[in-house]
Amino acid sequence: MTADAQQQVEIVRVRTGTRTRDRDRAATEEPLEIRIHDRPFAVIMRTPGADRELAAGFLLAERVLRSSDDLGTIAHCTDHDAAGNAAENIVNVTLANGSTASLDQAMADRRQVTTNSSCGLCGRRTIESLAADAAPIAASWTVSTATIAALPAQLRARQVVFDDTGGLHAAGLFARDGALVDSAEDVGRHNAVDKIVGRMLMREALPLSESILCVSGRTSFEIVQKAVFAGIPVVAAVSAPSTLAISLAETLGVTLIGFVRGDGFNIYAHPERIV
Amino acid sequence: MTADAQQQVEIVRVRTGTRTRDRDRAATEEPLEIRIHDRPFAVIMRTPGADRELAAGFLLAERVLRSSDDLGTIAHCTDHDAAGNAAENIVNVTLANGSTASLDQAMADRRQVTTNSSCGLCGRRTIESLAADAAPIAASWTVSTATIAALPAQLRARQVVFDDTGGLHAAGLFARDGALVDSAEDVGRHNAVDKIVGRMLMREALPLSESILCVSGRTSFEIVQKAVFAGIPVVAAVSAPSTLAISLAETLGVTLIGFVRGDGFNIYAHPERIV
Repeated sequence: MTADAQQQVEIVRVRTGTRTRDRDRAATEEPLEIRIHDRPFAVIMRTPGADRELAAGFLLAERVLRSSDDLGTIAHCTDHDAAGNAAENIVNVTLANGSTASLDQAMADRRQVTTNSSCGLCGRRTIESLAADAAPIAASWTVSTATIAALPAQLRARQVVFDDTGGLHAAGLFARDGALVDSAEDVGRHNAVDKIVGRMLMREALPLSESILCVSGRTSFEIVQKAVFAGIPVVAAVSAPSTLAISLAETLGVTLIGFVRGDGFNIYAHPERIV
Repeated sequence: MTADAQQQVEIVRVRTGTRTRDRDRAATEEPLEIRIHDRPFAVIMRTPGADRELAAGFLLAERVLRSSDDLGTIAHCTDHDAAGNAAENIVNVTLANGSTASLDQAMADRRQVTTNSSCGLCGRRTIESLAADAAPIAASWTVSTATIAALPAQLRARQVVFDDTGGLHAAGLFARDGALVDSAEDVGRHNAVDKIVGRMLMREALPLSESILCVSGRTSFEIVQKAVFAGIPVVAAVSAPSTLAISLAETLGVTLIGFVRGDGFNIYAHPERIV
C-alpha cells in the first residue's frame, strides 16, 4: 500500500470540555476512470494503489473479461495534463483478439441497465440469471473451524491504512491452510475484493478453487458474485450477510460464513466444507 | 420499516467445541429497478421499504430531479408476473413537464460515464465539476457539541433491523436542536441517505437548510454529495471520512464531523457551526 492511500488532514478535535486543532490521517478517495480501447467504460471512487488490478477485477465482475485469456494490456494512461502531471486516475484496458463481442455486450448492458428484466424482477431471477452465466463451485475440500476463526486477526494485522485512518475496508485471500496469500484495502469494500481478484487474474491464477476470501465488513450479493466469478469456494466475513448473498451462495455452491469473531462464527450456506 | 426488511434464515452456529443448527435473521437485499417514463434507468440493490423515497433520492443525486418541481408521479409498477405477483421491485417515475431535458442529459451521462473528463481526471476536478452544479451551503446557524455527541445514540435506538440482523446501515435526519426528524435503514449506506432525502423531496421540504444528517458508518464523497444536493449544512458520522469527502465538504460549505463516539468527535471541515 503506497503512501498515497492516506493523506494528512487538519482537524478540530472535540472532547469533553476541550477543543484543539490537530492533524490526523484520512483514507484517500479519488476517482478512477476505466477505459476500454480508449473508450470510457466506468468511473469508480477508490483508494489509489493496485489500480490495474482493480480494473481487471472490476471488468471480470462486469463480464467484460471472463478469464485472463481475454486480457490484452492494462496500463495507466500515459498522457499528461496541462500542468504536466501524468494521468494517475485513468487506466486503459485492451482486450485480446476476439473479446470485443463481450465488450459490445457489456457496453449495451450498461446502456440498457437491464436487458431482460420484466416486472417480475426479483432476487430469485437475479440469481437464476447469474447461475446461467457462471458454473456452480464444486470444490470438495474442507477447512477447520480453527483456521476460519484465525482469519480476521491475520487480515487485521495487514490493515496498515485502517490502523492510521479507521477509514478502509479490507479483503484477504487465504490458502486452504489459512496462510495469507494477498490482501487489499480500499474505501470501497467491493474494490478491495476486485483488487485481489484482479491481481490473480493478471497472474493467470483463476479459478481460485483452493482459496478462502475474508472480508472485513458485511457480505452483500455483489461480494458473493465476485467470489463466484473468481471460483472461490469459501467466503468468510467479520460482519453479517444479506439474504441475497445467502441465497446466491446456496445456489452456486459457496460456503458463506459471517460474524467471525473471537468466540466462533455462523455458517449461512454449504457448511459441509467446515469441519 | 416493514417485516420484509429482514428474513429468517437457517444457520449453523459454531462456537468453541460446539456446532448447532439454529435460526437467525438476516437483512433483506433485493434489486430495485428504477424506470423513468417506463424506460429502465438503474438497478439498485436495496433493502425493501421506502422504495419510492429511495428512487426520488437517487434521482436527485443523479440530477434527473433537481427539486420537487421536477417530480411528476412515482409509483410501483402495477403489472403482475405470470404467477400473478405484483411487481414490488420496480418503481416507475414520471417527470413534470419540461424536465425531460435533464432526463436526456442524465441518460447520456450514464451512457458516456463521464462526459468531460480528460486524462486529468482527479478529485479536484470532480469537485470543481460538482461545485459548478450546486450552490455552496451558506447556513450560519450553530449547534452545540452536546447535541452532536447525542446523535448516534438516538439513531441507534431507531435501528430496529440492525439490532436483529447486524446487517444494516442507518441514516438519520435531525433538527438543529438534535430532535430526530426521520431515519432509514438499508444494506446500502448510500440508500439509507437517499431514502431520507427522497422522502423530504416528496414532501417538498428541500432544501434541508436547518437539518443535520447523521450516518452510522463512514463518509465518502457520495454521502457528502447527497447532503449538498439536499442542502444539508451539517453531516456527522460514527466512523471516518475519506479525503475527497473532506475536500468536498470544505469547498461546498458543509460541516463534516467524524468519529462521533462517547468521548467526543473530530471536525474535518467548517468547524464554525459547532460551538
